[in-house]
Amino acid sequence: MLTRALEQQLNFLREIDRLKTVLRQSPLLDRSRKENSAEHSWHLAMYALLLQEHAGGPVNVSRVVQMLLLHDIVEIDVGDFPIHGGSSPAQQAEQEARAAARLFGLLPPEQGDRFLALWQEFEGAESEDAKFAKALDRFQPLLINVFTGGGTWTENGVSMEQVFSRYGPVIQRGAPGLWAVCEVWVGQHFAG
Amino acid sequence: MLTRALEQQLNFLREIDRLKTVLRQSPLLDRSRKENSAEHSWHLAMYALLLQEHAGGPVNVSRVVQMLLLHDIVEIDVGDFPIHGGSSPAQQAEQEARAAARLFGLLPPEQGDRFLALWQEFEGAESEDAKFAKALDRFQPLLINVFTGGGTWTENGVSMEQVFSRYGPVIQRGAPGLWAVCEVWVGQHFAG
Repeated sequence: MLTRALEQQLNFLREIDRLKTVLRQSPLLDRSRKENSAEHSWHLAMYALLLQEHAGGPVNVSRVVQMLLLHDIVEIDVGDFPIHGGSSPAQQAEQEARAAARLFGLLPPEQGDRFLALWQEFEGAESEDAKFAKALDRFQPLLINVFTGGGTWTENGVSMEQVFSRYGPVIQRGAPGLWAVCEVWVGQHFAG
Repeated sequence: MLTRALEQQLNFLREIDRLKTVLRQSPLLDRSRKENSAEHSWHLAMYALLLQEHAGGPVNVSRVVQMLLLHDIVEIDVGDFPIHGGSSPAQQAEQEARAAARLFGLLPPEQGDRFLALWQEFEGAESEDAKFAKALDRFQPLLINVFTGGGTWTENGVSMEQVFSRYGPVIQRGAPGLWAVCEVWVGQHFAG
């Protein structure tokens, strides 16, 4: 029977299909096109499953995966804010909070509240789970740039110092061992 | 430090980027293009998080999500076998098993074995987790067809009886409540 709750859940699942049409700045590794936010979220969830041993503290990988699956859903309303785009963080946070309220508000209240709280925890970047999720969300595009010979760094004229300051603190905080590897790659990239 | 294990994990994460270029038969809901298998896997993981109460038996949703995240990775080597394509199930199973061995074989052995076992459990469709995951993997494309006015059914001249026989048993077995709703929609679609 199509209950009210199931109807709300299916409406939400239809609505988030649109995340497949939100384009990020990063290319696919084969450089054939830009990555979209839905497939990016899938890839990040795989990163979490594989790399949990590199988290800076004790994490619940199932919660990290959930956070990463839904972390970009707000982009359905507000689009992707590029890391090298110079947008205002306060304005971005306000727009994203409004989008989260609308989107998770489509769900049955208890479920919507739980998802909203998980999204807020990710944004807050204070819990061990959120710090690790945030670190992976920076690590994956850094890897893309390294593996595609520059990617969004070359496009945006980003310097090595800017890479260190824009990626370093977040990755180091949530996954220090991964940042140690990044430092070597980034150094090699800009020396090369 | 870039250990051998981390190097293997990153090689795997690079390799599976290619799942973003494997196209399925189903369109996006806005019909702008075909869906790819990476974003399909993301969407299915969201279905599992939201709809776990509709599973036919007790499930561990974290394992179901993991299964769904990796269930299509073999398509990197063998492509998507369409449900209405008439391919040989035995040949498909053999090709996919070879692909799974190669891809999960890129990982550190213990991790690769764990992922391979999870993929085999999904394919086996015997555990409660696998039955629910399989049901969602049929439910999502059925919804797309209903919501896009026919989708791959119209394209392939599929009859109502074929829809019932190709989707029904798998969805009913893993998520009987969802199948009850599907029956109504499918009936309405073919009557309309």
